[in-house]
Amino acid sequence: MPGTLRWLEGTPIHEFGTTFGIPWLQGQHQPLKTRFNCFGKEDVEVPIQSWVTAYWPDGTVKWTGHAIFSTGTPDENYEVRATTSVDSDHSSDDRADGRAQNSKVAEISVSEDPAQNVITVNTGKIVACFSTRGNFPIRCITSVNGKVTGRNGRLVLLSQPAPSDEPTEVSRKRENFEGRVEEAIVEQCGPIRAVVALKGRHHSTDEGGHKPWLPFTLRLYLYAGSACIRMMHTIIYDGDMETDFIRGIGVRFDIPLQADPLYNRHIRISGVDGGVLSEAVQGVTGLRRDPGLSVRQAQTFGKPTPPIEEWDTTVSSRLHWVPSWNDYSLTQLSPDGFNVRKRAKAGCSWVNIPGGTRSDGLVYLGGATGGGLAVGLRDFWERCPTGVDIRDAASDQGALTIWLYSPCAPALDLRQYHDGLGQDTYDQQLDALNITYEDWEPSLGTPYGIAKTSELYLMSLDETPDQKTFSELSQFIRRPPVLLLDSETIHQTKAFGDTWCPQYRIIPSPVTKSIQEHLAFLFDFHKSQISQRRWYGFWDHGDIMHAYDEDRHTWRYDIGGYAWDNSELSPDLWLWLYFLQTGRADVYRMAEALTRHTGEVDVYHLGPYKGLGTRHGVQHWSDSCKQARISNALYRKYFYYLSGGDERVGELLQEVLDTEQAILTLDPYRKVRKDKATYQPDATALSISLGTDWSALAAAWLIEFERRGPRWEEAKKKLLASIKGIGNLTNGFVTGTASYNLATGEISPPAQDPDNKGVVQISHLSAMFGLFEVCAEIVDTFYREVTGGFERAWLEYCVYFNGTNREQIERFGVGFGKLQLRQGHSRLTAYAAHRLRDHVLAKRAWEQFHLKGGYGPEDGYGPDTNWKSRAVSTENAMVPVTEATWVSTNISSLYGIGAIQNLALIGDYYEEHRE
Amino acid sequence: MPGTLRWLEGTPIHEFGTTFGIPWLQGQHQPLKTRFNCFGKEDVEVPIQSWVTAYWPDGTVKWTGHAIFSTGTPDENYEVRATTSVDSDHSSDDRADGRAQNSKVAEISVSEDPAQNVITVNTGKIVACFSTRGNFPIRCITSVNGKVTGRNGRLVLLSQPAPSDEPTEVSRKRENFEGRVEEAIVEQCGPIRAVVALKGRHHSTDEGGHKPWLPFTLRLYLYAGSACIRMMHTIIYDGDMETDFIRGIGVRFDIPLQADPLYNRHIRISGVDGGVLSEAVQGVTGLRRDPGLSVRQAQTFGKPTPPIEEWDTTVSSRLHWVPSWNDYSLTQLSPDGFNVRKRAKAGCSWVNIPGGTRSDGLVYLGGATGGGLAVGLRDFWERCPTGVDIRDAASDQGALTIWLYSPCAPALDLRQYHDGLGQDTYDQQLDALNITYEDWEPSLGTPYGIAKTSELYLMSLDETPDQKTFSELSQFIRRPPVLLLDSETIHQTKAFGDTWCPQYRIIPSPVTKSIQEHLAFLFDFHKSQISQRRWYGFWDHGDIMHAYDEDRHTWRYDIGGYAWDNSELSPDLWLWLYFLQTGRADVYRMAEALTRHTGEVDVYHLGPYKGLGTRHGVQHWSDSCKQARISNALYRKYFYYLSGGDERVGELLQEVLDTEQAILTLDPYRKVRKDKATYQPDATALSISLGTDWSALAAAWLIEFERRGPRWEEAKKKLLASIKGIGNLTNGFVTGTASYNLATGEISPPAQDPDNKGVVQISHLSAMFGLFEVCAEIVDTFYREVTGGFERAWLEYCVYFNGTNREQIERFGVGFGKLQLRQGHSRLTAYAAHRLRDHVLAKRAWEQFHLKGGYGPEDGYGPDTNWKSRAVSTENAMVPVTEATWVSTNISSLYGIGAIQNLALIGDYYEEHRE
Ligand SMILES: [Ca+2]
Ligand SMILES: [Ca+2]
Repeated sequence: MPGTLRWLEGTPIHEFGTTFGIPWLQGQHQPLKTRFNCFGKEDVEVPIQSWVTAYWPDGTVKWTGHAIFSTGTPDENYEVRATTSVDSDHSSDDRADGRAQNSKVAEISVSEDPAQNVITVNTGKIVACFSTRGNFPIRCITSVNGKVTGRNGRLVLLSQPAPSDEPTEVSRKRENFEGRVEEAIVEQCGPIRAVVALKGRHHSTDEGGHKPWLPFTLRLYLYAGSACIRMMHTIIYDGDMETDFIRGIGVRFDIPLQADPLYNRHIRISGVDGGVLSEAVQGVTGLRRDPGLSVRQAQTFGKPTPPIEEWDTTVSSRLHWVPSWNDYSLTQLSPDGFNVRKRAKAGCSWVNIPGGTRSDGLVYLGGATGGGLAVGLRDFWERCPTGVDIRDAASDQGALTIWLYSPCAPALDLRQYHDGLGQDTYDQQLDALNITYEDWEPSLGTPYGIAKTSELYLMSLDETPDQKTFSELSQFIRRPPVLLLDSETIHQTKAFGDTWCPQYRIIPSPVTKSIQEHLAFLFDFHKSQISQRRWYGFWDHGDIMHAYDEDRHTWRYDIGGYAWDNSELSPDLWLWLYFLQTGRADVYRMAEALTRHTGEVDVYHLGPYKGLGTRHGVQHWSDSCKQARISNALYRKYFYYLSGGDERVGELLQEVLDTEQAILTLDPYRKVRKDKATYQPDATALSISLGTDWSALAAAWLIEFERRGPRWEEAKKKLLASIKGIGNLTNGFVTGTASYNLATGEISPPAQDPDNKGVVQISHLSAMFGLFEVCAEIVDTFYREVTGGFERAWLEYCVYFNGTNREQIERFGVGFGKLQLRQGHSRLTAYAAHRLRDHVLAKRAWEQFHLKGGYGPEDGYGPDTNWKSRAVSTENAMVPVTEATWVSTNISSLYGIGAIQNLALIGDYYEEHRE
Repeated sequence: MPGTLRWLEGTPIHEFGTTFGIPWLQGQHQPLKTRFNCFGKEDVEVPIQSWVTAYWPDGTVKWTGHAIFSTGTPDENYEVRATTSVDSDHSSDDRADGRAQNSKVAEISVSEDPAQNVITVNTGKIVACFSTRGNFPIRCITSVNGKVTGRNGRLVLLSQPAPSDEPTEVSRKRENFEGRVEEAIVEQCGPIRAVVALKGRHHSTDEGGHKPWLPFTLRLYLYAGSACIRMMHTIIYDGDMETDFIRGIGVRFDIPLQADPLYNRHIRISGVDGGVLSEAVQGVTGLRRDPGLSVRQAQTFGKPTPPIEEWDTTVSSRLHWVPSWNDYSLTQLSPDGFNVRKRAKAGCSWVNIPGGTRSDGLVYLGGATGGGLAVGLRDFWERCPTGVDIRDAASDQGALTIWLYSPCAPALDLRQYHDGLGQDTYDQQLDALNITYEDWEPSLGTPYGIAKTSELYLMSLDETPDQKTFSELSQFIRRPPVLLLDSETIHQTKAFGDTWCPQYRIIPSPVTKSIQEHLAFLFDFHKSQISQRRWYGFWDHGDIMHAYDEDRHTWRYDIGGYAWDNSELSPDLWLWLYFLQTGRADVYRMAEALTRHTGEVDVYHLGPYKGLGTRHGVQHWSDSCKQARISNALYRKYFYYLSGGDERVGELLQEVLDTEQAILTLDPYRKVRKDKATYQPDATALSISLGTDWSALAAAWLIEFERRGPRWEEAKKKLLASIKGIGNLTNGFVTGTASYNLATGEISPPAQDPDNKGVVQISHLSAMFGLFEVCAEIVDTFYREVTGGFERAWLEYCVYFNGTNREQIERFGVGFGKLQLRQGHSRLTAYAAHRLRDHVLAKRAWEQFHLKGGYGPEDGYGPDTNWKSRAVSTENAMVPVTEATWVSTNISSLYGIGAIQNLALIGDYYEEHRE
């Protein structure tokens, strides 16, 4: 069932190798007996590298990753076909180092020389040498014709022992660090794509300096036939927030320049939306005398000028009077403006170059004949403060630095934003929670273990690019091309389940049309708020805010638990499902940015809380509530498989297997537990919630199992044991909290109900962080003998959560009382309706979704919602903004997920009940 | 002949007292016998303070300055009438301290207490105490009902001994300074307006620190009935550019806050185009519990909340859990973007507040009942890097700082931008001039003595302003209201001569219509380049660039003599004449900014070059060519008189009386003089050009004389002596260079022609820096017996400069050869045509203006000029820009001046010769 692969934003002008993911139907393709072929325009076969990224429970292929490359213009679309092969040697490998299926084209080669501590990758266009040890991770990039276009690629870090609080204060000692590679792993080695991971820490360049810290991973992606290296740069903060203030994070290369005279060396720096600053180190345009049109044009377009002997002598005889520009800097310290300046040499004043608003973030230094390197940072202005520096362009070896965090900005200050205000006891903290909605606790708001991943591109260029080319390359790094299968095919495979459907499958009716209009409104509105409210910055880019302050006409950026959303009520899921439903490029990009953010910044990657995330708050790490629900693997799954198995996200998916250890360390219910005075966590009977905790554990297990990750057998065991345990609970999910055995995965009745008589404990949050999706996937894809009791428990929860008081009493002996998020839970009813083919339940689900009868803001968007935004009057905000005071990100996420799932599950209800 | 006074940009919403200038016909009003009255709407008399700013040669009033104030809404227009009074006590004073003419309204009072070193000004709304000695120039501002809204107003300065070159370097010691008042002068003392000037230097706050430096003048303007103080802040750089790097320049006030609880203290910070950030120190909106609508609304709008006892107790009982925000900062480091952040207290992390593009630059700190101070800096983002800081808002006394130069930016580096490139000898320097057009000389590119004046507003507010009011106030400081007489009345008085005319007086014809379209094009284009090319910044704002590099699609910001224009060929004059012709508000604003810039930054105000300006170049002070033509008083004259005698500009007009001393010190022709090996400047026979040098000296004398300034008798003597001397030269202005006696002003034939046989030495630049206007004014307004020979000399120059070779030989014995700037000189021909009523000359002048016959780019814009600009393609510039590669600022200025003057002088030619 091959579907069509299309470019997310149209066929790109440049494409330097692309990786993508494809889902397959259960039971169709045996991993060892399947061959994948790719076909482009007019059914011409395109070389491809293939690997399996997930398996169905029956062992057949569920998701594959593929890499292609293009030497010329990419085709408009592609198709990957799977055929059964008897020759298992030609099948795709089940590990991530897929081998050649098609060797009629140039292949990438990877070799390692342990004696020289070097890994060499030859793409056919460039030879890149990576160090497996030491301070120059990217030792050298050489074009196949022998030009060294960049070398000594290294990580630079600046820190200071105190914050940059007041400019009037005596300034601080700064310490310089370089990233030192301590481990190198070839993750893929061709034939189309090679992936090399270099890991290490930052070491002080000062004698007796700071201990090594800030672990990094540089993941380098190279494609056959390509001169462009994609570099994913990850750091984890493991400093002391009181004494380790990061001042600058950069990547630096040396560029050999001796091949070209000063007037044939060129600088290119990205401006706005494809704009370019093009200069020569020694300019020959705009002078009082004309060297000749051919000379000026050559320099302007980056070509070698005619020999200087052919220039007009009025210029050539006076060239020594024309200054050369040794150094350039661009600083993007605000998301709205950048400055540029240059300098003839140290000791002389800088000269301002007219700047602008938002730089695309690509910079080139090189010569007309010797070539050079262009280095770009994706989302450059969104991740401000950022910058680029060129140094020593007038010497034989220039240096080019791209700053992921600009040293011209105040140092990163990760300390907490308030001093606790005297909230010393749990009772005080719970009282404060009642006013600021912040769950505070001394020392819990730690940044220790949060991470940041940045995407860079290193383009080896044999000659200076002309303006048009450089402009196109800067647009490439703004929006690296994405190849995606059509939603219909994805839907048919059920690899992302079938609780969503592509837009055109939705039964047309006034109601379903109106729901889709609301979905579009909600997405567009939240997207608009990102740009209007400047939700940008090193830590912040990608996230959205949680709640709005209508009095101040601002999102509650400064109020305790209302600021950064940190995946509260699953906006990640909403955006990915909405992308699957619509295929809209802007939805994909917003979902991608959110996933990158929440997976890195909102989650701990080392330290005692590794595997947990932090509840919504003013700082992404400030709330003391560390939760498995925030780090839920489900939120990364969509991007992971669609991207063909993004390696960094793959790491994040594995990390969360340790979440249960962190729950053991830090009891999530320590403040509210009735037995908090006496409770002792017990690894064989850990008290966990069957909602937010178990769903996060189960999501991690599910994915590790289907990926056949290193711990897949442990994951499978625990998943199946816990499924069985839940199925055996008298009240199933309604039990609320149960005992969990960390060693076996077994779930048993909670401590207060040793005889499994049945406990009723309901929370409106339980099913709102992926429980629905995890349960649906388990029920859908696992053997019936495994899921029998579990399915019954899940369906009961679905039926009764929004059921009537009478029904609840009939089944469980007590009613659940008044619950919130009725709209968000309508999808549970819909699921039951769909599964049980129960039209009465379907009607009830739609009534719940539409909040028929009374409702409050805690239930969802009801019939009185006005579905409009309005401009805030000028004097009520710093910049022009719109607002929809009725919007809550919680409710938007649930409306989004509920609408998309209900339309898929019970959309046909409106076929039978056209209004 | 009273004309109508109108507001430049329409009737302002707020007006806190306005000063304006009015011209009068020669021979009409005797200073000691004239009374001025002002009338507003429906002829109701408005209180006014009046003073004479200039006199005609016959001693009658030429220009007056007036101050009015309004307590409510200003009227749409006003009229000032002069009547002859026999009672000289009621006449306007001839000094600048005009006395009351109308005492039926509240008057401002000024008193000085030498014992307390204080000058107290009571406006009826506020009492402001200024220190005549010490570190708190603005000691206290108290509202008449006793609220202290600001105190300890002081100047803060940060410097460092080395540049902020590389962030990786160990950072520099910073030194803190405070401005110490050493002299105080009451320049005006009521009844409507008081002006107090406080002068001093910045003193180190460190023991044994830097010597006192950076002289300042704070000029404070107060009006009866107003709570707003206008503060003109001037500094002169007198540091060592190698060791004195300014890091921050600020004005700071302490704000008493103890009158209001934290939740009734408010912050207001300007956003974009009237946008406002409104916050309370301790917010009660957006919380989990609602204190009550009336509480939230009161806080939002800056009113005192109901007593806390009346709040909902769910909030009042938990208020101690709500953080207060002690500190706020806004940094505008680029003209395109600002950042805002706040902090609960020192030791805690800052929290980012969404920022924006361009802040209006007003900031308020105060309490709902205690009030506070709003401080604003005009042209805030244009003068970036700027900023505002609020500190200690949660303590009893907050501090508010506005940064004229933000300490968050790299330190000001005034060193030269290149090292001279080995240009050691004059010959080398002249050779380099031939390629970069820069006139370089070691050590001559000094910033020692350049100045900067900034305009601030201090608004004493009895209570926190609501958003609407604050928004209006921020628009007030963006465009302080200007009251101007209509152009027709100005023209009729001839006070600015009659070589220009208001637009509607121009004879309509296809040619004159087309000329006016070209004038509009040129203005609009150059104006557009300011915003597109970001000609903003601390030193740069106001200036325009000189020449364009069509290869790079950029102005030649980095090429020797082609970058900043520094008044080359009189753009100041062009803009002011174009404003007079059109009355356009945007022309006035651009002319005002240019005048402020060129008068301060491009000119030396102390040191050996005091009185000279610097030729166009990459830095405003980098060129070694220091010229009287750049500092020409004529360029300031228009703004000076229209503004009612701006006191700072008045100082600039007097400074240039010292220009001749600087010429004696630094021979302007040292590199090109034939006798440079032997030439010794002689104060009794100084070699000066009769074009650029003499016109600058004469302009300064003329203005000092007509102002009756402290040196007016010396000025008059030198002016008349030099007029006589020029008239006596056999070849008049064609002599080129003559001998000048610094003591007497006498002009005698040049050294090589002791017998006055007649020398011919012509430069195309001679008449392009104000010579025309100065000569025309002398001929027009002085007694005929004085000007006879002079007028003949001037008319000869006008007739012969663009005359035929034959005519030149006939009169002077030799032809002038090929000269440039034919179009710019057509106005000389036009002047002669007008003066001599010579239609043949008029026809010739228009032919010259239109460049009939062959022309080159050095002549002007000719018939082949395409008069269009076009968009530069995206990849050819960093940001979207337009270009007109045929435009040269030199030529635009001369086209502008020539067109305006020709239309006035010989526009009637087209009445007779309609095409
Ligand atoms: Ca977050
Ligand atoms: Ca200038």
